[in-house]
Amino acid sequence: MSETVCIHGAGSSRFAKQPERSLAELVWDAVIEALDDAGPDGADGIDAVYVGTCFGAPGTAQRALHTLGIVGVPIVTIENACASGTTAFHEARAAILDGRARRALVLGVEQMSTAFAGAIHPELGDAEGASGMALPSLYAMSASRYLANGWVTERQLAQVSVKNHRHAEGNPRAQYSGRYTVEEVLASRPIADPLTLLQCCPTSDAAAAVVLGPARGAARDVPVRASRLASGGLWDHRTDHVWGFALVRDVAAAAYEEAGIGPQDADLFEVHDAFTIGEIVTTEALGLAAEGEGGALVDSGRTTLGGRQPVNPSGGLLSRGHPLGATGVAQLCEAVWQLRGDAGARQVDGARIAVVETMGGGVSGIDGNGAVVAVLGG
Amino acid sequence: MSETVCIHGAGSSRFAKQPERSLAELVWDAVIEALDDAGPDGADGIDAVYVGTCFGAPGTAQRALHTLGIVGVPIVTIENACASGTTAFHEARAAILDGRARRALVLGVEQMSTAFAGAIHPELGDAEGASGMALPSLYAMSASRYLANGWVTERQLAQVSVKNHRHAEGNPRAQYSGRYTVEEVLASRPIADPLTLLQCCPTSDAAAAVVLGPARGAARDVPVRASRLASGGLWDHRTDHVWGFALVRDVAAAAYEEAGIGPQDADLFEVHDAFTIGEIVTTEALGLAAEGEGGALVDSGRTTLGGRQPVNPSGGLLSRGHPLGATGVAQLCEAVWQLRGDAGARQVDGARIAVVETMGGGVSGIDGNGAVVAVLGG
Repeated sequence: MSETVCIHGAGSSRFAKQPERSLAELVWDAVIEALDDAGPDGADGIDAVYVGTCFGAPGTAQRALHTLGIVGVPIVTIENACASGTTAFHEARAAILDGRARRALVLGVEQMSTAFAGAIHPELGDAEGASGMALPSLYAMSASRYLANGWVTERQLAQVSVKNHRHAEGNPRAQYSGRYTVEEVLASRPIADPLTLLQCCPTSDAAAAVVLGPARGAARDVPVRASRLASGGLWDHRTDHVWGFALVRDVAAAAYEEAGIGPQDADLFEVHDAFTIGEIVTTEALGLAAEGEGGALVDSGRTTLGGRQPVNPSGGLLSRGHPLGATGVAQLCEAVWQLRGDAGARQVDGARIAVVETMGGGVSGIDGNGAVVAVLGG
Repeated sequence: MSETVCIHGAGSSRFAKQPERSLAELVWDAVIEALDDAGPDGADGIDAVYVGTCFGAPGTAQRALHTLGIVGVPIVTIENACASGTTAFHEARAAILDGRARRALVLGVEQMSTAFAGAIHPELGDAEGASGMALPSLYAMSASRYLANGWVTERQLAQVSVKNHRHAEGNPRAQYSGRYTVEEVLASRPIADPLTLLQCCPTSDAAAAVVLGPARGAARDVPVRASRLASGGLWDHRTDHVWGFALVRDVAAAAYEEAGIGPQDADLFEVHDAFTIGEIVTTEALGLAAEGEGGALVDSGRTTLGGRQPVNPSGGLLSRGHPLGATGVAQLCEAVWQLRGDAGARQVDGARIAVVETMGGGVSGIDGNGAVVAVLGG
């Protein structure tokens, strides 16, 4: 049993649309890098595996792991919508804290190019897809509400995209990057009004992995100070908040309490910017700004690289890409690289504490399938 | 934290091909019965949920739970092929033993009528399906090996089907039942030689649930004495054993050790008879018979209701049905009903200890995605 769980190693594949690479190849990239990074022991030292993934045939990730010599140990595959990867991390950390595992591998993976089209399909019971109430519409409604309330402007929404695409220029693993203007973001193809193409995350193929273990006095190891998971409830139409706000706020509050910090103490955040409005709402839910002031926050520059509390220095889901199961683990990898000072051109100076937040789901009628907030470093 | 985890309540839907019922309706049947059975507290007393399911759109089971008032708690959805339900149970039990949850709901669910055809499809990367190497073929090869070795006869294989269909006559929730002769089983439609239709489990739509919690001195509560989970490894073609044997043998040995019993101490077994040869191999792996003597075991009558150690009194997967994610939890429900003396016409007299075994997977090249063995009662 361990008092503190640390991340010993991190790794990921490139993020891209890469249908020519098998899911196994993506897994190998991520896991081999994470195991090498974790140092000695390697696969032999892994006694539990937690996999986060949404789509793809059952067993595919397991087969990829077996071929790396990870055999004979419990492998638990978890689906929790967009939060699948961080839910796997949450469960793996618990297994170590509880003494059931000494060293655990967390893998997140999704190959959306080949699996996605078949997996979300009206004939398979996806009423949301059939009615057009897919995630872009859900986020667009939040954006419309914020615009109607005067809580955000269209330019502020676009500024989130400008910021995160610019951040991704420093991230060689990112799917997209670039120096856009607010005008260019607003002029990109409409997806779900008021959200334009550059305000929506792309679908992606990628894998990411971290190795968790006990504290061992290694300077490169990153302590996990807190991790919290909860599922939302039925959507309450009388609420004053947009979708997901209350869930993330409550989960974050619990994580801050466990870590003994407040939002002002974190040096960087990796948050669920599946759409620009997502980052606005999330930074408010995380306590970086009061509700209705997330737009002003992004305008202030505080969340831009070089500012006091950069949000999504990796480029976020908007630019790094959003391979569902891999996303949460990729956020953890970014936190590890930042806290070690290994983040290169996108390094947050003097980063000591990082907060990772992933928001999962939103099939109609649910205020979030789940959210995970973790605090690392310190 | 609890020294012993008990099953407080059990429930399931009917097992059938029932495409007219939504996945949510199946969930409601199982969960409402399990919560009612668990007594006071109800949904308010649940502080963690573990769901086992393989197919279906992400979030579907969560939505069904939310409408029952199960909101705001961690809901972790697990896929581990045919062992998804018992893997969810295994993780839930750990969460209670470790003090992370006081009372947990375990749900297994699958609606294969509407989800299965789309989910296992060559275009989605299912190389096994495309090449014909689906599960029936894999089990058929084991059967051929056993026949070639002289370890089983075709009549003994058929006798497993005769026994389990007869057992299911006492199970009003079972999908199929009936009094077949060995000749009728052998004369049913060939599926994958030497396995005929009546030697193969049907696809099914169903849900099953159990409520886990601490020991509370209630006579109806069923203690969980052991639960073990492991994943297989890459198939080793030099092995002397058929697919899955070594994995189940090793997991069972660990479970027996944890429970402090041997196979001779159990009064009944619910095992993974997806195909008749599955029960033969599994009873050997569980130590009820030496390797190569599982056929003689079924002939002996010892594993038939009325015998000393009935195997699959519920009818097993062959007759109750095999809705993947629901299967493992349904096995646990059967153990609960038997150990309480509530199993009606299929009651095992004086049942005190039950063993549940679920074998998951088998995409090509893997010696089992995972196996869970649990010991209940005593």
